[in-house]
Amino acid sequence: MMTEENRGRLLIACPDSTGIVAAVAQFLYRQGANISASDQYSTDAFDGTLFMRIEFHLDQLPAQERSLCADFAPLAEKFQMSWRYAPARRRKRMAIFVSKELHCLQELLWEWQSGQLDTDISMVVSNHDDAQTLVKSFGLPFHHIPVYPNDKSSAEAEQLHLLESAEIDVVVLARYMQILSPTFLERYANRIINIHHSFLPAFIGRNPYGRAYERGVKLIGATAHYVTEDLDEGPIIEQDVTRVDHRYDAHALRIAGRQVERSVLARAVKWHLEDKVIVYENKTIVFA
Amino acid sequence: MMTEENRGRLLIACPDSTGIVAAVAQFLYRQGANISASDQYSTDAFDGTLFMRIEFHLDQLPAQERSLCADFAPLAEKFQMSWRYAPARRRKRMAIFVSKELHCLQELLWEWQSGQLDTDISMVVSNHDDAQTLVKSFGLPFHHIPVYPNDKSSAEAEQLHLLESAEIDVVVLARYMQILSPTFLERYANRIINIHHSFLPAFIGRNPYGRAYERGVKLIGATAHYVTEDLDEGPIIEQDVTRVDHRYDAHALRIAGRQVERSVLARAVKWHLEDKVIVYENKTIVFA
Amino acid sequence: MMTEENRGRLLIACPDSTGIVAAVAQFLYRQGANISASDQYSTDAFDGTLFMRIEFHLDQLPAQERSLCADFAPLAEKFQMSWRYAPARRRKRMAIFVSKELHCLQELLWEWQSGQLDTDISMVVSNHDDAQTLVKSFGLPFHHIPVYPNDKSSAEAEQLHLLESAEIDVVVLARYMQILSPTFLERYANRIINIHHSFLPAFIGRNPYGRAYERGVKLIGATAHYVTEDLDEGPIIEQDVTRVDHRYDAHALRIAGRQVERSVLARAVKWHLEDKVIVYENKTIVFA
Amino acid sequence: MMTEENRGRLLIACPDSTGIVAAVAQFLYRQGANISASDQYSTDAFDGTLFMRIEFHLDQLPAQERSLCADFAPLAEKFQMSWRYAPARRRKRMAIFVSKELHCLQELLWEWQSGQLDTDISMVVSNHDDAQTLVKSFGLPFHHIPVYPNDKSSAEAEQLHLLESAEIDVVVLARYMQILSPTFLERYANRIINIHHSFLPAFIGRNPYGRAYERGVKLIGATAHYVTEDLDEGPIIEQDVTRVDHRYDAHALRIAGRQVERSVLARAVKWHLEDKVIVYENKTIVFA
Repeated sequence: MMTEENRGRLLIACPDSTGIVAAVAQFLYRQGANISASDQYSTDAFDGTLFMRIEFHLDQLPAQERSLCADFAPLAEKFQMSWRYAPARRRKRMAIFVSKELHCLQELLWEWQSGQLDTDISMVVSNHDDAQTLVKSFGLPFHHIPVYPNDKSSAEAEQLHLLESAEIDVVVLARYMQILSPTFLERYANRIINIHHSFLPAFIGRNPYGRAYERGVKLIGATAHYVTEDLDEGPIIEQDVTRVDHRYDAHALRIAGRQVERSVLARAVKWHLEDKVIVYENKTIVFA
Repeated sequence: MMTEENRGRLLIACPDSTGIVAAVAQFLYRQGANISASDQYSTDAFDGTLFMRIEFHLDQLPAQERSLCADFAPLAEKFQMSWRYAPARRRKRMAIFVSKELHCLQELLWEWQSGQLDTDISMVVSNHDDAQTLVKSFGLPFHHIPVYPNDKSSAEAEQLHLLESAEIDVVVLARYMQILSPTFLERYANRIINIHHSFLPAFIGRNPYGRAYERGVKLIGATAHYVTEDLDEGPIIEQDVTRVDHRYDAHALRIAGRQVERSVLARAVKWHLEDKVIVYENKTIVFA
Repeated sequence: MMTEENRGRLLIACPDSTGIVAAVAQFLYRQGANISASDQYSTDAFDGTLFMRIEFHLDQLPAQERSLCADFAPLAEKFQMSWRYAPARRRKRMAIFVSKELHCLQELLWEWQSGQLDTDISMVVSNHDDAQTLVKSFGLPFHHIPVYPNDKSSAEAEQLHLLESAEIDVVVLARYMQILSPTFLERYANRIINIHHSFLPAFIGRNPYGRAYERGVKLIGATAHYVTEDLDEGPIIEQDVTRVDHRYDAHALRIAGRQVERSVLARAVKWHLEDKVIVYENKTIVFA
Repeated sequence: MMTEENRGRLLIACPDSTGIVAAVAQFLYRQGANISASDQYSTDAFDGTLFMRIEFHLDQLPAQERSLCADFAPLAEKFQMSWRYAPARRRKRMAIFVSKELHCLQELLWEWQSGQLDTDISMVVSNHDDAQTLVKSFGLPFHHIPVYPNDKSSAEAEQLHLLESAEIDVVVLARYMQILSPTFLERYANRIINIHHSFLPAFIGRNPYGRAYERGVKLIGATAHYVTEDLDEGPIIEQDVTRVDHRYDAHALRIAGRQVERSVLARAVKWHLEDKVIVYENKTIVFA
């Protein structure tokens, strides 16, 4: 039956060569699976890396998936694949980090509530308590963990403990204004999504709206990206812009930017949750 | 070698069932082909129609393609496919029809000249002579075929004769303001692309900018579609809009609309030329 | 002092002729007012109607405005103006009508809460009770007034009673799926804003997303307009679109459309609240 | 009569204070002029700079304008205005500089030919001869002035001589890939418009598409700006973007970017020609 239960995804990266698509499709066919979506991209036609995302349905998938993965292993080895199997029924567990600006958090909560984000939101974590009422109104756990400049590590230890206890799969920084340590980033590599309030690589760092105002730009933007040690330099998942003009001061830019930040982050998170984003050499392949 | 010569495309439509992707991929693999792009879409996950577009490279394709097609036939029959093989080296032969407004024609000529449109433009046909100088400056044949209200059929006979003599594959109506007969349309079904100067289905028919002005819309648009007997009702390939406001009168809307018409038509034609558009029940599937 | 208290707006429509701008500016100058924003538009350069919106600051405006209006009357008469004075400190009182889809309501409440909508939301009215929890969480009155097909008038009587008791200035139909009677519309002419879930005039009436799907459009849109007796034919305030493709079924179009509906309605409402919209012959002039 | 002959514009910048709008409007009224468009912007409501653009019609303007300007002088002095009078009939004389990429040049020539750019194109200057055929086909003078790395100044001397002989008002760098000297820039301050092929301030300098590819951006853009000594740091007139994805290599980005470059530059040039752009502290006020 073609239910959520029986829907699985294969994410594959390997050196490109003839026959890979055929081999994978043939494998799934023999397992009895029906391919419902298939995307592929090769970085170079001759000597590149091939990326595939295949969504399939297989009767009794929960009971079959262990043997399916075992059977796939030799094929994966033959083509030197790095690969991942993701059953659709296993929703990713999400933690949202936020500071004082709540619009991105609110957008995510709404989209989640209306069924658009296929995730379990396990908690909202903040260094302030502004979000508390909002989070509670959605019946979700809220953790207020202040971050003190002279002792950031204890806050992070507490955060990591929470994340690990809850078996968190993805962390969304929904306007969380603290920098995370390399240790933290390493622990959740390619699983921390940040929204930066500019069209990167323009206005990296602090106060992008103020600097956009100073520069006199005619569009402002937002960028959702995976977080790496290099501030605002991680792989970009999604970007968008909106038009402004000379009448917008820095405050007006900030207000206008909220709309873009909200929709850009929501799209990026949605794609991540549906295993549609693959990171490759500080860039993303998005099979949206 | 991975040259234009050796690049081919398979376009397939068939009842969806398990194993089709595998069978096609396996077939191409055994032929020695390397799949460089693959798109699929199924109208319904259970009982739908599957559409596939596969781009592949095969050494010595020109010499191999006859046997490749012959070998594919049994597989196609097994899955009840309607299918088409299109070698990339065989550029489509295009005729452009135009009346007095030249901006869409000009855009196509530019894009063609700069190598963006993979086509041979065999001729430009017009019921007026406004385009003559422009067309000649590109070194292309121009045919002035006036259309008289009381004898449209003789003009059409002349047009069809020209098209057939030149073995035209696709006709682009780049602001051609005459209605074509059912016979003409039948002859080039799904191969005549029109640009309509509105966001269809708004403002079907005459004078869309005048009516857009009367209605007070805040965006105006353009629509590229395949032409069918039902005026402006054919399958839509591409659409876009641009922002206007109360200061735009009908003339200003027309000027602003030109930019949208140009880019929408150019995109639609490009996709058609690259076999990226499939028509299905008065809609298009665009594997762009 | 340049406070909200002391900010006023003049909205003027009159036959265009030489000297009007000078006369109005001179008048305000003599009153001691400082013009902070001024917009004008003339429907026709020779023989048209002139529309002006002037925002000014005047010390002690609340105490001065009665005499200011009295003094302005002769000038208004001289130029045959229809005009309106609107003090910024007098926020419009708003009622929101909603049915079962809550995304537009949610957007308005949020924008209001974050200070972007300069209004007092007096009540939310619905023919269903789905919105109740949301509305209560914002501390706002919620009125559940069911509408029975065979007795619509009693529901409307109750609605009108509520609106009049609360001295409502503007009614926003945030996906309210009932048709209002001519009496109701007459009572709040040019003060009822509806969001229609299509790019009007395409897909007037019921089920626009279903019909957009059938037509195979490549963009879907939303339109905010003042409500008149002709369904979906009233003056358009704002429109926008978003891109879709063949993979979107009617349900997916509906989900994608929500984002556009939300932002289009929020912009239109904001402009109305700030007296930036003037209705003229079934169109709007928007001094945004 | 309301002809192009009788249409004038006043551009004003001055310290903001009460009564300026009234004084200017009153002045024009007494001169017998009819204001057809009026825009104003103040950098700060309290203590800012006021910018105004007024378009008016005055019978017999060519004969009247000398006395009109003389009469305006005392008023200008009173309010410490820097101001400029620009008769619409005096079309700006334009020189276009180009190198090897011709798409921006082509767009400008076409817009000019179809009457959308209110200018006299006096010449096209290039350090290569690629544009020669195109320019000649429009019947315009083409000057091939090679630029040698070890002797840039002689090329510039020749360029300046040409510009001065032809009394050029505005220089458009339509993908001209040479850096101009401070002397040159000084000579035509705020009258040289460049198109940069990125969304500034992202990707300042060389090879923006290559760097956009490396960074993995999801939108690419273009920026039209006045040229100053600081490379790509001059006042921005207009910007726009277009969507790309992981399948675009640097070459594909470059092709996609052409469309944006063309339209952004054409808009910026049009606004400049119609005196709609005011430069203020390295930003622009665009009364579009």
